[in-house]
Amino acid sequence: MYVTHLECPKCGTVFDHRKVVQLCQNCAAPLLVRYDLKKIKNKFRKKRLKHRIYNLWRYKEFLPIKNEKNIVSLGEVITPLLKLKNLGKTLGFKHLYLKDEGLNPGGSFKSRGAAVGISRAKELNVKSFAMPTNGNAGAAWAIYAAKAGIEANIVMPKDAPLITRSECAGAGAKLYLVNGLINDAGKIVAKAVRQYGMMDASTLKEPYRIEGKKTMGFEIVEQFGWKIPDVILYPTGGGVGLIGIYKALLELREIGIIDVLPRLVAVQAQNCAPIVKAYENGQKESVFWENAKTVAFGITVPKALGDFLVLDAIYKTDGTAVSVSDEDILKYKLLLAGSEGLFICPEGAATAAAAHKLLEKGWIKPKEKVVLLNTGSGLKYFDTIKPNPPILDINDEIVYPL
Amino acid sequence: MYVTHLECPKCGTVFDHRKVVQLCQNCAAPLLVRYDLKKIKNKFRKKRLKHRIYNLWRYKEFLPIKNEKNIVSLGEVITPLLKLKNLGKTLGFKHLYLKDEGLNPGGSFKSRGAAVGISRAKELNVKSFAMPTNGNAGAAWAIYAAKAGIEANIVMPKDAPLITRSECAGAGAKLYLVNGLINDAGKIVAKAVRQYGMMDASTLKEPYRIEGKKTMGFEIVEQFGWKIPDVILYPTGGGVGLIGIYKALLELREIGIIDVLPRLVAVQAQNCAPIVKAYENGQKESVFWENAKTVAFGITVPKALGDFLVLDAIYKTDGTAVSVSDEDILKYKLLLAGSEGLFICPEGAATAAAAHKLLEKGWIKPKEKVVLLNTGSGLKYFDTIKPNPPILDINDEIVYPL
Repeated sequence: MYVTHLECPKCGTVFDHRKVVQLCQNCAAPLLVRYDLKKIKNKFRKKRLKHRIYNLWRYKEFLPIKNEKNIVSLGEVITPLLKLKNLGKTLGFKHLYLKDEGLNPGGSFKSRGAAVGISRAKELNVKSFAMPTNGNAGAAWAIYAAKAGIEANIVMPKDAPLITRSECAGAGAKLYLVNGLINDAGKIVAKAVRQYGMMDASTLKEPYRIEGKKTMGFEIVEQFGWKIPDVILYPTGGGVGLIGIYKALLELREIGIIDVLPRLVAVQAQNCAPIVKAYENGQKESVFWENAKTVAFGITVPKALGDFLVLDAIYKTDGTAVSVSDEDILKYKLLLAGSEGLFICPEGAATAAAAHKLLEKGWIKPKEKVVLLNTGSGLKYFDTIKPNPPILDINDEIVYPL
Repeated sequence: MYVTHLECPKCGTVFDHRKVVQLCQNCAAPLLVRYDLKKIKNKFRKKRLKHRIYNLWRYKEFLPIKNEKNIVSLGEVITPLLKLKNLGKTLGFKHLYLKDEGLNPGGSFKSRGAAVGISRAKELNVKSFAMPTNGNAGAAWAIYAAKAGIEANIVMPKDAPLITRSECAGAGAKLYLVNGLINDAGKIVAKAVRQYGMMDASTLKEPYRIEGKKTMGFEIVEQFGWKIPDVILYPTGGGVGLIGIYKALLELREIGIIDVLPRLVAVQAQNCAPIVKAYENGQKESVFWENAKTVAFGITVPKALGDFLVLDAIYKTDGTAVSVSDEDILKYKLLLAGSEGLFICPEGAATAAAAHKLLEKGWIKPKEKVVLLNTGSGLKYFDTIKPNPPILDINDEIVYPL
């Protein structure tokens, strides 16, 4: 393992990665895992990856697991990077791609964070954790925890997708609903953590979830033949995916695999767009968004702990932040299903709406390579489509064309 | 392409694969795709696969696509073969595995049949098809058809999983519900096909779906290092998966990659077990099962067109057929989620219940390598788990332990 320490990105304080550490004890900022990148640079060879397992664990030099025995796997896959020829043509893109995180175990990108987070927790002998969630993260941590034999306590808003409740409960997690938003769930978790001494697995309150998420960045670069696309659009709630991809890109640049970085775009919903507002005002941090509500439930995060890291990634890569309406989210969700056969989540659909907006504004050029990050399967949000098919009796005939 | 012709497994009549052909025109049996296996034997080298795409298209010698341009892909993956250490220990297996087809695009093994079936339909210039379905097959064919620009007409029982309706409708398929079972849907499709001249994509009424399904067999053998397990258990409705795996095994034996075959086990639900009944009576075909009903909706098939092929595969491999109760299906579903973090479909859970039954009977030995085939994601059947978590107010605390 090449991890050297944990580091506070705000004050630079260093912490011991061999212990369970949560936030920076000075400034309460999330901690980042640091590696001996010089050593990795000397050891890492792209061509060796050909002989490695075809999932995120192939990037083992960049992952915080010391003993491979501690790896908890549910059969992660390299998620496909699909060229959207049909939709690209319709919207005016020459090179539009979608990375489909819906094919992960559990149906969302949250599995990456859980795979690495739970594996590291097992390595550090954690027995129990609590976390707030908008649904998918809780489900992902619950299933990996079940396999690892670690106790999971999950608190989610009562409006979170119903399916994620079944996943948590099915996997044997202790599940609670809260009559509020994810921040309210977070407060309940914080109290429980203080009272019962569990690990706090809240977004960015433990440092290893990012390490799992960053593998999306490695995969994208490897899938483009160790080159970068021009733009990556990411649906942004807590922002860990974007922070993770940015961290992967910086690490790859540090060891000389890439030189320039793609522009990173944070996509939010119009009725919950704290990062977009902060970006438009040129601020380094966001302000709590009142009365947040969007059909893209996963990105209903009024104030993210890592907002400053998301904004930093945007500024440093000449990226931007864009919000889209719920109406557009649902429209592009159907457009993706009908033209590309991709049944994706509303959060993912938001990136398509945002990309089109940025193309029309001229911020994206038609010939640029653009990646939409679909964070999860549409199966979890099936009720955003309300079909009303005719019901036939067994002796009826199809009247065609309708 | 190495396809030479289509062949009736009952009467041996040969048909031209360059045309759209459905059933045998003599005996109405399903047709099988035949390849020049001698030529494949001379050309195919296992080690070359290392350099190929990591999904079902890597087995291209054994697939019926002439021009790769016609391949319609939604980013298929090699689905994981997971060793179930926790569950194996609990039940008494030394080497229990699960192949998780829930990670396919669309969340089920039906994507394999649709990927190859739709690609071949595109190659043969098919513009429109109709099919009956218990949900997942319709959803899979609808999404692949959307990408291919082919019209899909789908008829499913009104009790089929709700989510599959959203998938079909979202992808722009023409969707109809029927107040009956899949056989009733099949009759409606048959009428539409006669009347409007669409292709009939019913189970086994077109020959290419099996070719997609058979890739599960190639993957299992490759994942075991080009060796075979001792037993494969398959949840059996229409039986195409089992027929496909058997066909793959025969082809691999023919070209000398394997010599003996694993014992194939058809798993059905107690209240819809026509294959099991036929097997117990030593018959070659099954009898229509009255009042079929099971929580494993995908295998609610009272009489399968390919029943004689399923039974043949069982007899020829010294396999067996087993039925399990709905109660056990739901019990093993929770057992898999709680001990292995696998949120699978009831059909998949049925294979775990059946394996345990066969172990207790001594038909499976504790040291044998046993593969459970999970055909789809549990997300589509989330309502088989009914969690009832406490609802907290935002100022509440978790009372722990419960």
